[in-house]
Amino acid sequence: MITVLKQGTSQAQMEHLIAWLKEQNLDVHVSRGQDYTILGLIGDTSRIDMELLGSLDIVESVKRVSEPFKQCSRQFHPEDTVVSVGKARIGGGHFCLIAGPCSVETEEQIIEVAEKVKAAGADILRGGAFKPRTSPYDFQGLGADGISLLLEAKKATGLPIVTEIMSAHYLDLFADVDIIQVGARNMQNFDLLKELGKTDKPILLKRGLANTLKEFLMSAEYIMSEGNQNIILCERGIRTFDTYSRNTLDLTIVPMLHELSHLPVIVDPSHATGKVRLVPPMALAAVACGADGVMVEVHNDPIRALCDGAQSLRPEQFASLAGKMRTVRKAVAQ
Amino acid sequence: MITVLKQGTSQAQMEHLIAWLKEQNLDVHVSRGQDYTILGLIGDTSRIDMELLGSLDIVESVKRVSEPFKQCSRQFHPEDTVVSVGKARIGGGHFCLIAGPCSVETEEQIIEVAEKVKAAGADILRGGAFKPRTSPYDFQGLGADGISLLLEAKKATGLPIVTEIMSAHYLDLFADVDIIQVGARNMQNFDLLKELGKTDKPILLKRGLANTLKEFLMSAEYIMSEGNQNIILCERGIRTFDTYSRNTLDLTIVPMLHELSHLPVIVDPSHATGKVRLVPPMALAAVACGADGVMVEVHNDPIRALCDGAQSLRPEQFASLAGKMRTVRKAVAQ
Amino acid sequence: MITVLKQGTSQAQMEHLIAWLKEQNLDVHVSRGQDYTILGLIGDTSRIDMELLGSLDIVESVKRVSEPFKQCSRQFHPEDTVVSVGKARIGGGHFCLIAGPCSVETEEQIIEVAEKVKAAGADILRGGAFKPRTSPYDFQGLGADGISLLLEAKKATGLPIVTEIMSAHYLDLFADVDIIQVGARNMQNFDLLKELGKTDKPILLKRGLANTLKEFLMSAEYIMSEGNQNIILCERGIRTFDTYSRNTLDLTIVPMLHELSHLPVIVDPSHATGKVRLVPPMALAAVACGADGVMVEVHNDPIRALCDGAQSLRPEQFASLAGKMRTVRKAVAQ
Amino acid sequence: MITVLKQGTSQAQMEHLIAWLKEQNLDVHVSRGQDYTILGLIGDTSRIDMELLGSLDIVESVKRVSEPFKQCSRQFHPEDTVVSVGKARIGGGHFCLIAGPCSVETEEQIIEVAEKVKAAGADILRGGAFKPRTSPYDFQGLGADGISLLLEAKKATGLPIVTEIMSAHYLDLFADVDIIQVGARNMQNFDLLKELGKTDKPILLKRGLANTLKEFLMSAEYIMSEGNQNIILCERGIRTFDTYSRNTLDLTIVPMLHELSHLPVIVDPSHATGKVRLVPPMALAAVACGADGVMVEVHNDPIRALCDGAQSLRPEQFASLAGKMRTVRKAVAQ
Repeated sequence: MITVLKQGTSQAQMEHLIAWLKEQNLDVHVSRGQDYTILGLIGDTSRIDMELLGSLDIVESVKRVSEPFKQCSRQFHPEDTVVSVGKARIGGGHFCLIAGPCSVETEEQIIEVAEKVKAAGADILRGGAFKPRTSPYDFQGLGADGISLLLEAKKATGLPIVTEIMSAHYLDLFADVDIIQVGARNMQNFDLLKELGKTDKPILLKRGLANTLKEFLMSAEYIMSEGNQNIILCERGIRTFDTYSRNTLDLTIVPMLHELSHLPVIVDPSHATGKVRLVPPMALAAVACGADGVMVEVHNDPIRALCDGAQSLRPEQFASLAGKMRTVRKAVAQ
Repeated sequence: MITVLKQGTSQAQMEHLIAWLKEQNLDVHVSRGQDYTILGLIGDTSRIDMELLGSLDIVESVKRVSEPFKQCSRQFHPEDTVVSVGKARIGGGHFCLIAGPCSVETEEQIIEVAEKVKAAGADILRGGAFKPRTSPYDFQGLGADGISLLLEAKKATGLPIVTEIMSAHYLDLFADVDIIQVGARNMQNFDLLKELGKTDKPILLKRGLANTLKEFLMSAEYIMSEGNQNIILCERGIRTFDTYSRNTLDLTIVPMLHELSHLPVIVDPSHATGKVRLVPPMALAAVACGADGVMVEVHNDPIRALCDGAQSLRPEQFASLAGKMRTVRKAVAQ
Repeated sequence: MITVLKQGTSQAQMEHLIAWLKEQNLDVHVSRGQDYTILGLIGDTSRIDMELLGSLDIVESVKRVSEPFKQCSRQFHPEDTVVSVGKARIGGGHFCLIAGPCSVETEEQIIEVAEKVKAAGADILRGGAFKPRTSPYDFQGLGADGISLLLEAKKATGLPIVTEIMSAHYLDLFADVDIIQVGARNMQNFDLLKELGKTDKPILLKRGLANTLKEFLMSAEYIMSEGNQNIILCERGIRTFDTYSRNTLDLTIVPMLHELSHLPVIVDPSHATGKVRLVPPMALAAVACGADGVMVEVHNDPIRALCDGAQSLRPEQFASLAGKMRTVRKAVAQ
Repeated sequence: MITVLKQGTSQAQMEHLIAWLKEQNLDVHVSRGQDYTILGLIGDTSRIDMELLGSLDIVESVKRVSEPFKQCSRQFHPEDTVVSVGKARIGGGHFCLIAGPCSVETEEQIIEVAEKVKAAGADILRGGAFKPRTSPYDFQGLGADGISLLLEAKKATGLPIVTEIMSAHYLDLFADVDIIQVGARNMQNFDLLKELGKTDKPILLKRGLANTLKEFLMSAEYIMSEGNQNIILCERGIRTFDTYSRNTLDLTIVPMLHELSHLPVIVDPSHATGKVRLVPPMALAAVACGADGVMVEVHNDPIRALCDGAQSLRPEQFASLAGKMRTVRKAVAQ
């Protein structure tokens, strides 16, 4: 950590600060320039509050040299993490296709979609049982019944399933779920992350609507710090000034996350764009920039979907897209 | 709700859609223009999924005419809500000053700060016991012990207390807390909101970092829909492209919330700016645009603060600010 | 255009507004709902000020049904526009690779880079002569001399050239330039756009840092409204809250622009990301989602580049990338 | 400037870089930590390209210690700049009220508004003659005729006038204008800024829609670097994800600009909010946080305004607001 002192800092003030820093078990290297004095702080700076330091009258600015994340960092774990569920593998060169309806509605619906996406090449079935909705008056999902229906579809097709959790209170219901999803709104629900860190289930962690790359990795770190190393990161669009698509898909984070972390990274173009016709081009772009997987919404009857139908492909559209994704994957992997 | 149909929509397609809308218990008024046909949907449209409608091939766009919020809307409750805790009143012309340290640390610290902010005119004591931190390795607050210390300070000074909850799991610990705070990161933790809606405690709901005015009100609506009408809205800065202050304080939302809702609105300039020297001007600006209260961080010894010291005033700075706030309040209330 | 009147609007107020609208040569269709009255405005509404209408006390909201852009709209010009310079074609199925240094520095430099990018498959040479820099103390480009050097490189290689204009005052200097670039900061320099609309040069129009899709198309419309139909739209990253890359590349705008407009769309991953190692994955993603071309910075000696070297590939990196782009192009075009 | 070298940088690589830095006339202080090596660069670093340095394989990060702005910095000019036009003073404790219509329309209109805002206490008359509009089909202002009408109003009332320039091409028309305004869209039109720097007219520089505090000051620096020191900075709202007001008024920049720069800072709540009813509370908030002036739109007949009528107060509303602003100014100045 580097601390730059303001012009006019007295020797006594500087020594007072250095004494305090040494109390925090840090070594301090002093480097005097013409206008500014720079303190290099050596040791475990992860517990130092940068904002506190930066608030002191004599401090011009503070900068971290090393990143505060550890277990998710590629620096300490150079090889890719591969998450395995059933026959599916995600990361480390394994590409994974996750598909299914926004919400689970009926047994017929979920089994029909499951069979069709399996036939089209999906590796994992997705479907919402607990639904986070902006309004308390909107459909909130089938809850426990939705999970039962997903388990029926798993039995019928052999596809592993992923579905979202909204509160650790319901963790027991997820005993037979293969991957537990944490939605964008809960990316910094730290109590939930800690509880999931105590399980051994793979966690699909979605990026929050306005969270930085570092905050995203720190949320993965919350789960890992409790012992669970099976995490899949998912980019699903961020909030910006433009409104032509629901959110702005930030694909550049894919290669950037791969550089900083060993965790697999997938992309959800359905929630990001909110429009069926934008899903195929953005799914292909996600593959082209190196995503380890893509998660798309597929529905057998969009007009009747209880929610989010706007972003769901029909099974035949998904089948065509899946073929193109494989071709692009090959092209960029060469 | 208004639905505009695309050019080239056939009569059969339109009739199919109208039939589906009528199944949803809506009346449909058709209005044909030169290029477009407009459907006016009459009835309870709050359960209609706008995005689903908008996704249909024949639909150009969809627009809500009436707002989806009900209980927090001024339309259905024209007079201001006044929240009362102890002798403090917030809203309806009552101005309220909330002050205290970012984190509760020791009995001496919290009692000393409580006494000093009370002397300076604070109506309510704030202090963090459960702390949401970006990193799992940062100080997470004293938890239950922190709440006990706050209760000691309440006993010593008579000030009501407000402190943050991070999970409904800990609700029992808040039995003697006067106001329960929901932090920005949990503004859309809907399960937590529902649980708080079942209590009769006043809730201080902070706006999320990237949440719109409507989402903010819908989160209040989640609490109210379960029965709890005692809600204080709190603007605390949003995330934008600029980084000179920690967040961008969005004061314009204060008069806008007052227009749309009867709930009291306060402002937290400490977390928004992250810099002590920006707190006084922004606290005064908050008062000038009509806030029903201001919440500021005050600490007896900023250099030793375990967290967020960067944004804490010293008690004597707070006393001076409190005086100016009262003067501005009078000036704008005339 | 649809105007929704507030509850409680009197008959006289409504008639007053309708009279004013008819003065503006519009037909008005009135549609009364239970709570609201809707006015459908028929005719040329492009000159109506939506914000003025929306500001009236009796008006709840205003919504445009048809888009305000005309000449750039696919609605009025269904087939793709193809821009031709020399042997290069952009749009309508023709893919185009633009490459070159950020700044033109010396004759040797620009000719060497031009030869190498030509050998690697570039169709057009780019190079900055007039450089927009945040600071007046930063290198501002070689100006007229830079354009002369670009023309030398054109003569040596046969590649058409594209370079940025910063003021219509210098238009004469661009007489032999093949494509004139308008930079992001000048996207809404309307006087410059109008002047360029009076030329017959192809214009490469970059999206502004915080401009919406509609504003982007309206700036193209400024050029087209003066007579010049040869426009290439270029996405180059937008400004968001995250700072891990220089800007956030908004690739979703590529298919969206193709849907709304007939103009060709290219992507500049170099300026968007600001980091060499992010350029190849994002260039491939741009191709995968349907861009008509990619513009990348290539430099023969990054360490000595006077500006923006951080985002320049070496020629051999570019050659490898060009090959992969062709493969992905084929994969998605199938 | 501080440059942090990555772990694993060889001695030879480091020496190569240091040699290059010394060629740029910089002294280099080397400071070795456990994991990282830090280079402190001493001397005139304003011409060093941070992004180039940061792009090198061996470089972890680069940070400026001193700000790149000079002439606008309070460090080099501690006392406040006071801009004088006629009897009006802005800055250094002088508060200034600027008012007038969005667009100049007729002689009667502008003279009537000028007389009324003068009576209500305005110090300067504003009015648009050249109007930047998103659409080429929208009303573009009366141009030269509009300036003539403003000069009539100046003659009639004695109020100095401010109006916007959109191209240096029209500079001659501004010979008798008292303050030349640069609009948000032209904040980084560097050629225009340089031309204005060669005049001796006071410049009212509006912040761009998505420009940072530093970019804002650097644009002032462009003008000052050419010799013109008479600059008024104007905050007018930034673009964020929320759309309930037209832009997000960023009032925190007012005290922050006062800290960093000696230039006066005013606020335009009319364009920021886009809604008449939000103008008074935000104007009062601007005064409360220390703005040196406020600029508001006032119109004698909002319904007929050709543009931006939505944000214009009537003269009597302005008079009432002006009184309250003076009271708040006194309250915070104590």
